[in-house]
Amino acid sequence: MSAEVVAAEGFELDHRIERDTVLVGRLGICEVRLMNDSAYPWCLLVPMVADATELHELTRIQRCSINDTSCLLATVMMGLFSGEKMNVAALGNVVPQLHIHHIVRFSDDQAWPGPVWGRFPATPYEPEALSLRVADLRAALSLDDTGPIASLTDNAG
Amino acid sequence: MSAEVVAAEGFELDHRIERDTVLVGRLGICEVRLMNDSAYPWCLLVPMVADATELHELTRIQRCSINDTSCLLATVMMGLFSGEKMNVAALGNVVPQLHIHHIVRFSDDQAWPGPVWGRFPATPYEPEALSLRVADLRAALSLDDTGPIASLTDNAG
Repeated sequence: MSAEVVAAEGFELDHRIERDTVLVGRLGICEVRLMNDSAYPWCLLVPMVADATELHELTRIQRCSINDTSCLLATVMMGLFSGEKMNVAALGNVVPQLHIHHIVRFSDDQAWPGPVWGRFPATPYEPEALSLRVADLRAALSLDDTGPIASLTDNAG
Repeated sequence: MSAEVVAAEGFELDHRIERDTVLVGRLGICEVRLMNDSAYPWCLLVPMVADATELHELTRIQRCSINDTSCLLATVMMGLFSGEKMNVAALGNVVPQLHIHHIVRFSDDQAWPGPVWGRFPATPYEPEALSLRVADLRAALSLDDTGPIASLTDNAG
């Protein structure tokens, strides 16, 4: 199942997601993006499907692909960061473009046990720490080093 | 694919989920439960899998079944309540038993556009309104009237 088969033409990343995240890579039909908030290991899966806002409005093949990618991402993040709990959520009340949060939680993180949204302003990574975290995620996700990561440098400045 | 095939023996509902919700019915390998908070149309899917805490630790067949049930539930809830946005989330920081929130959101609800958790105390339904809402959900989900709803009356008292 290739991205071309199930992802519609015309996908464009929301500018708010682009501003707040950096691209880790592409997996299945999704972009994997790291939230630029060092308070938590926090990634978004953004299905590259034009105008998608709700998981339940996708086709079954799209949902299955996203489900598998979500499982892989959650497993890799929990292993890489020795997490205590994974939070997975599709909210989209502020930014309607479909995006699925994957957040590694610890019982000593600043928002525990509450959800992370709207609690604290983001703590951006230092540039080196950001590059390192993206590299760690790419390696753990077996993402090809030659893949398109142009927007990483675009965003990380 | 029957519940017996993919749901492990020994599933027991967490007492906090039991306290805060009423059973709507069983779909696939999940219990569908209505949160007793009239502020939002809010259901939980609770996979009947013993000791499950993380979606990514389930088998693929379990995940696919839950994904299909989630899609059906979200579609039905959005139709039944003419919702503006669906919020789907597996958090579990307070109650680790795996449960997936499905919350219909409106731009004039009390927590919009923030997430609902930890914002306002629950506003329990009046008994008649609770029964009506459960009946509406059962009808919309095509749940058999003869199915097990004992804990509905247990909880709704």
